[in-house]
Amino acid sequence: MDYDQHFKAALDRLHQDGNYRIFADLERQSGAFPRAIRHGEGDALCDVTVWCSNDYLAMGQHPATIAAMHAAIDANGTGAGGTRNISGTNHNHVMLEAELADLHGKEAATLFTSGYVSNWATLGTLAAKIPDCQVFSDAGNHASMIEGIRHSKAPRHIWKHSDVVDLEAKLAAAGNGPKLVAFESVYSMDGDIAPIADILDVCEKYGALSYIDEVHAVGLYGPRGGGIAEREGLMDRIDVIQGTLGKAYGVLGGYITASAALCDFVRSFASGFIFTTALPPALAAGALASIRHLKVSDLERQRQRRNVAKLRERLDAAGIPHMMNESHIVPVIVGDAKKAKFITDLLLDQHGIYVQPINYPTVPVGTERLRITPTPLHSDKDIDHLVGALSELWSQCALSRAVA
Amino acid sequence: MDYDQHFKAALDRLHQDGNYRIFADLERQSGAFPRAIRHGEGDALCDVTVWCSNDYLAMGQHPATIAAMHAAIDANGTGAGGTRNISGTNHNHVMLEAELADLHGKEAATLFTSGYVSNWATLGTLAAKIPDCQVFSDAGNHASMIEGIRHSKAPRHIWKHSDVVDLEAKLAAAGNGPKLVAFESVYSMDGDIAPIADILDVCEKYGALSYIDEVHAVGLYGPRGGGIAEREGLMDRIDVIQGTLGKAYGVLGGYITASAALCDFVRSFASGFIFTTALPPALAAGALASIRHLKVSDLERQRQRRNVAKLRERLDAAGIPHMMNESHIVPVIVGDAKKAKFITDLLLDQHGIYVQPINYPTVPVGTERLRITPTPLHSDKDIDHLVGALSELWSQCALSRAVA
Repeated sequence: MDYDQHFKAALDRLHQDGNYRIFADLERQSGAFPRAIRHGEGDALCDVTVWCSNDYLAMGQHPATIAAMHAAIDANGTGAGGTRNISGTNHNHVMLEAELADLHGKEAATLFTSGYVSNWATLGTLAAKIPDCQVFSDAGNHASMIEGIRHSKAPRHIWKHSDVVDLEAKLAAAGNGPKLVAFESVYSMDGDIAPIADILDVCEKYGALSYIDEVHAVGLYGPRGGGIAEREGLMDRIDVIQGTLGKAYGVLGGYITASAALCDFVRSFASGFIFTTALPPALAAGALASIRHLKVSDLERQRQRRNVAKLRERLDAAGIPHMMNESHIVPVIVGDAKKAKFITDLLLDQHGIYVQPINYPTVPVGTERLRITPTPLHSDKDIDHLVGALSELWSQCALSRAVA
Repeated sequence: MDYDQHFKAALDRLHQDGNYRIFADLERQSGAFPRAIRHGEGDALCDVTVWCSNDYLAMGQHPATIAAMHAAIDANGTGAGGTRNISGTNHNHVMLEAELADLHGKEAATLFTSGYVSNWATLGTLAAKIPDCQVFSDAGNHASMIEGIRHSKAPRHIWKHSDVVDLEAKLAAAGNGPKLVAFESVYSMDGDIAPIADILDVCEKYGALSYIDEVHAVGLYGPRGGGIAEREGLMDRIDVIQGTLGKAYGVLGGYITASAALCDFVRSFASGFIFTTALPPALAAGALASIRHLKVSDLERQRQRRNVAKLRERLDAAGIPHMMNESHIVPVIVGDAKKAKFITDLLLDQHGIYVQPINYPTVPVGTERLRITPTPLHSDKDIDHLVGALSELWSQCALSRAVA
């Protein structure tokens, strides 16, 4: 078999469908977020304004985060030097796990190298190693959760997205054995928020472990940045709260917080936790500083909310249709992979605006979109510039306008 | 079901079997490797010499690595800000991928958040998405490779560890379809080295894609640190070379290098690559500096080899049995989980020597061991101190001596 020929044919199909991904080659400019330098073809450089980052609160350039990383590199060097078990646990990991447990009001926390790995490893381990466990997974769950559940080989039931009636019907039909209900708080691509209290009601009624992914919420919601569950006073009713250090906290890594026994169980049995090099001490230190800052500072959250509202208002005024939700994510639906790419190419090349088009498999075919994430640091001028450029392109592509 | 009760019972069984893992809480001392501060119970601190790190060449405290990380944090901030596709590709990633392709003489490279993820995502994607692919996996392969192959659901054949006759028999019996042969160069726990040329001969004979994991070899072997395959002049015959930035290069992250089409295919279809936040630009910059240094400097490798030979010589003189191999890994077999833990506890508490005991599931029951990794920076005095302490404990535990 000519393997490369097979790979090329598959890539050709992506090109034909408009789903081939070209990564924007950026240099983020610390101190000047959301500005970045874009490397184009040849040696061409241009300035762009980034409108699609998940560094939601610009903590990736915050003096506290930066200073903590510098200090830890000087103190401890650049890497952890091993797995958590074999020389790789650094005191910064221990302090960060204590901080995360405190953030969510739990007994313990376990760190992973990424949010993806934390979902995959935790769900994979719990569902496989709780005897006769059945898993109930929201239809909108992230790829990392789906892969973890699949990995466990436990029987799984997909309930309709955020539909508690459907969840309850499936739980009721499943008998008396162990159950695990997995869902997110803020869904990344539509920006909608789960009915957490209602979900917990049925989890408790049917004796199911509850598992929430708060990666698009930690740092952003709740008085201390504990997420939607903190804002709604529900953290103590959730068995496992999973989060990330790579979005609002501006660094890298994932975690779970839960009972001491559950964390110790996952720590002791999850292949994806055991057999991998620990996060560099400096990343743990940076995340720790970022979490501590957002526990006491609401300024970034307020400013972000203000900019989200301002952007929605301007989009409405221009008749650019955007999906309504209660979160900080502003999805502008184009509905066609090639048009989405055409629009974002022109935004980049003619307007210095970088918004990555979101295509299949990240979103379903026909719902291709621009996913816009205003940060506290976008200015009113940035917002006007974005909406003006979108409006121009909307006309050029003959896309329909919303009625204001 | 009382879930916590189930977790506690499983943890109790680990305790009873001597397999419960307690992580040493360390502060690596940049500028003083292999020294670290250990946090004990309460606020107790003590100095230890680390003898089990995978920061094999101490690049985690090298001035070039450290300076590159500092500079990138100041230039680009602390995190990547998104997935590789959605605003997370930084120019440092692009440069690092080009450097890795050059290191292994390949057309392209693809970065992942860890070595674990690179094996899991690449093997999982290739084996699942090459139609009718059958996988041939060495019996000694790492957990991350096993999980990736399992994830693919492709038919798999486990061949006897490093046994090319068995591999050939299994390939010959498998018919004419696509095949993928996965193995490592240096096996982590025994330190043995695969017969790469012989394996490639049969891969070529039967038209199989070859996949080698060089995580315990990159930076350490070959004139430019390209690994065992570079040392043996075999890189161009291997389809996929996988490596890590978290061991000899002293940072964090994993990668593959291969044809441009194969890398692009994995980049385009692997869930574990697509749906995860990119490595912080500073980690990419640190790894890049480390790789470039070890491409031209042989000093670290020479000094490490000298220390490995010196340690083996002293162990022989003291009659401490160690497993022979041609690598830098010195396994001292104890053969019992509780004794291994007893010895390492006393090494730590009475001698200030930190070697983590390696127990099941990392190694088979009955082969529990101390896995010792001399670095270029261990002194002759450190070696004498280690061997003296081991000799004392060998007598105390009535373990048998090797005949010198």
